[in-house]
Amino acid sequence: MINPRYTRLVQSLPSAIPFVSPDTQERLRGKPYKARLGANENGFGPSPLAIKAIQEHAGDVWMYGDELSFDLRSALGKKLAVEIDNIIVGEGIDGLLGNLARLLVEKGTNVVTSIGAYPTFNYHVNAFGGSLHSVPYKDDKEDLDALLGKVKETGATLVYLANPDNPMASWHSGEAVEAFANALPNGCLLCLDEAYVEFAPQSDVLPIDIENPKIIRFRTFSKAYGMAGLRIGYGIGTSELISAFNKIRNHFGVNRLAQIAALAALADKKWLAKTLKNVGQAKLRIGEIAKDNGFEPLPSATNFVTIDTGRDGDYAKAIVEACGERDVFIRMPFAAPENRCLRVSAGPADEIELFGKALGDAIKTVE
Amino acid sequence: MINPRYTRLVQSLPSAIPFVSPDTQERLRGKPYKARLGANENGFGPSPLAIKAIQEHAGDVWMYGDELSFDLRSALGKKLAVEIDNIIVGEGIDGLLGNLARLLVEKGTNVVTSIGAYPTFNYHVNAFGGSLHSVPYKDDKEDLDALLGKVKETGATLVYLANPDNPMASWHSGEAVEAFANALPNGCLLCLDEAYVEFAPQSDVLPIDIENPKIIRFRTFSKAYGMAGLRIGYGIGTSELISAFNKIRNHFGVNRLAQIAALAALADKKWLAKTLKNVGQAKLRIGEIAKDNGFEPLPSATNFVTIDTGRDGDYAKAIVEACGERDVFIRMPFAAPENRCLRVSAGPADEIELFGKALGDAIKTVE
Repeated sequence: MINPRYTRLVQSLPSAIPFVSPDTQERLRGKPYKARLGANENGFGPSPLAIKAIQEHAGDVWMYGDELSFDLRSALGKKLAVEIDNIIVGEGIDGLLGNLARLLVEKGTNVVTSIGAYPTFNYHVNAFGGSLHSVPYKDDKEDLDALLGKVKETGATLVYLANPDNPMASWHSGEAVEAFANALPNGCLLCLDEAYVEFAPQSDVLPIDIENPKIIRFRTFSKAYGMAGLRIGYGIGTSELISAFNKIRNHFGVNRLAQIAALAALADKKWLAKTLKNVGQAKLRIGEIAKDNGFEPLPSATNFVTIDTGRDGDYAKAIVEACGERDVFIRMPFAAPENRCLRVSAGPADEIELFGKALGDAIKTVE
Repeated sequence: MINPRYTRLVQSLPSAIPFVSPDTQERLRGKPYKARLGANENGFGPSPLAIKAIQEHAGDVWMYGDELSFDLRSALGKKLAVEIDNIIVGEGIDGLLGNLARLLVEKGTNVVTSIGAYPTFNYHVNAFGGSLHSVPYKDDKEDLDALLGKVKETGATLVYLANPDNPMASWHSGEAVEAFANALPNGCLLCLDEAYVEFAPQSDVLPIDIENPKIIRFRTFSKAYGMAGLRIGYGIGTSELISAFNKIRNHFGVNRLAQIAALAALADKKWLAKTLKNVGQAKLRIGEIAKDNGFEPLPSATNFVTIDTGRDGDYAKAIVEACGERDVFIRMPFAAPENRCLRVSAGPADEIELFGKALGDAIKTVE
C-alpha cells in the first residue's frame, strides 16, 4: 500500500513545473542576466507610491491580511463600474486560473485552448483531470473560429482565450471577442485572460458586460503595474460565479503588502501613463533592432514584441541561447510555427541596447 | 443548464469562509481595535532585519519570485538538517493544508481530526469531498487515543494533530506523538501542524525523522517570526511526499518579498530569542490578569494563553463581546466544553494591560 495514499487523480499526474523562473535560470547559470527581458516582467518597475506603501507598511506584516481584499476590490469596482461582488482577488492570475479550473474541471470535462497558449492554464486543467483540446493559431493570432468549432465538437465547458495574446502579442477587437462569446454554446464559459489589457488599444478592449454569465475575465498587477513578484491579480464576472470562488479558495492567500501596494498603484494614474509610454518606446526600439537584423517585429498589444526570424524553431532556439550566453534573457513561443519567433519584453533602454548587441552577435554565430 | 457548469463536487459545497479577519472585524465595527490579541498574531513584530530586507527590495517586486524558493529551502534544510527536497514552501500553512488535502482527499476519503481544532483544515478536507470524523478533546488536550481509535474505526488515510494545540495551547511530548504516529495503520498520514512549535518546550518537540513516511509537519513564519501577513510557511516530509506537491501547487504562489523576509528572519536568532522572551513575559502577565479576575490560565506552549472562565460558552462569548466593545480583540474556542475559555494572544505590554482593564470591566457587566 502506498503511504500516503494519494487520490487516483494525483497518482495519474506527472510532476510538472509550468515555467522555470528567471531567478532559477540565473542560479543554474551561476550569474545574473544583464538584461532580464524574457518573462514579460515590467522592468520599469512599480509606481513609486506602491514602493513607498510597501516600505511604510513593512513593519505591519505581523498582521494577517484582509481575507476579503475589501479596499482593493472596492477601488477596482469603482474603476470598472462594477460591484465589489463582481471581483475576486487572488494570488496572481495563475492562482485564479487554478481556482477556476477547480470550480469547473473534473474527470471528463472538456476544455479548449490554443496550441502554444499559456501553459499554466493547461497545467491547472490537467491537474484537475480535465481533457484539453487545442487548436492551432492562425496568422499568429488565436483562431476564434477554430476555438469555437472545437468547443462545439467536444462539448467543452471552458475555453481559454488570452486577449491580447501571449506569446504572439496579437489581439482581437472587442467586437470579435464579443461575437465569439455570444456564439459559445450555453454551458461553456470563456476564460478571458486580459493580463496585458492595459497595453492594448483601448478602443479594442471588450467593454465589461457584468451580467454576461459566459465570460470571466482575469487581470493582474504583474504586468502594467510592475508587481509580478507580489502575486496579486483579479477576476471579473457575475456575482454568482465570483462567489463560487469562496467555496474553494485559500481565503488568506493574498498577502497584506500586495493588497496595500496594489491599492497605491491603482491610484497612481500618472505612473501607469508613464509606464505605457516607456513600454511603447521600448517596443519601437525592439522593432528597429529586429529590422536592423533582417527580422520582422509583429504588431504588439502587449508589453513585449514578438519577432519573426523568418526561419524555424531550431534557429530561434539557437538565437535565444546565444543571447543567454551574452547575459541577455529572452524567450520564444513553445509551439510551431510560432516558435520561429523570439519574444522580447519591453524594458529599460540600456537593457534593450544590450539585447540589440547580443542579437547582432548571436546572428553571426548561429547557423 | 447551469452556466457555467460547476463540478458535481463544487455544486455540493457551501460558500464558506473559515475565519473573519481582524481587519474585516474592524471595518464592520467602524473603528480599529486598541489591542489586537485575538488572531494569535505576533504583535512584537518581525525581525528588524526582515523589515529592512522588505524595504530594500520593495522596488524589486517587478520581478517574479523564485518558484522553487531555493534559497529559503536551502536555509531551512541546513537549520533542520534535512535535504532541500524534504521541504516545500507555500502560501502559509493554510495554503499547504489545501495542497495536502488535494493530494490525499477525494470523495470517500475518511479524515480524522478533533472537535474544535483548526477549521481551515476542515474547510479544505470538505472542499475536496472528504468525510471528516471528529473526536472530542480530553482534559483540554487533543486526545491521541481517541484520534487513533477513530482512524482505525473509519479507515482514515489522513489525521490532523496540532502540537502545540490551538485553541487550547496544550501539547503532547515528542514521545507521545511518535508513539501515536507509529501506531497509525499503514496508509494513514499524520498531518502534524507545528505552527506554534517555536514556543513549545524544545525538549518536547518530536525530533525530525525525515525517512518516516507517516508524518508531514507544517511550520510557519506567521507566529514566532511575526510575518502572518506575508503568507509563507513550509512543510517537512519525505522527498517522495514533498515532490508530490509539485504536481498540483501554484508554483509561483509564494511572493518574492516573503521569501526574502523569511530568509532574513531565519538568520536573526537574536530577534527570535527576544520574541520568545517577550511572549513569555506577556503570557505570565495574561495569567496574572486571569487569576486576578478569578479565572484559571491553562498551561501554554504557544504564543497565547487559554483562560478557563469556569463557566460556559455563553458566558465566554459575552466576555469576548464585552472586551470587543472596549476595543480589545480576543477570541474563544469554537466547541464545547473548550468554549468556556477565552483565548488571548501575547502582545505588547500596553495591549495586555488594556485587556486586563477590559476584562475587569467586562466581568462586571456580564451576567
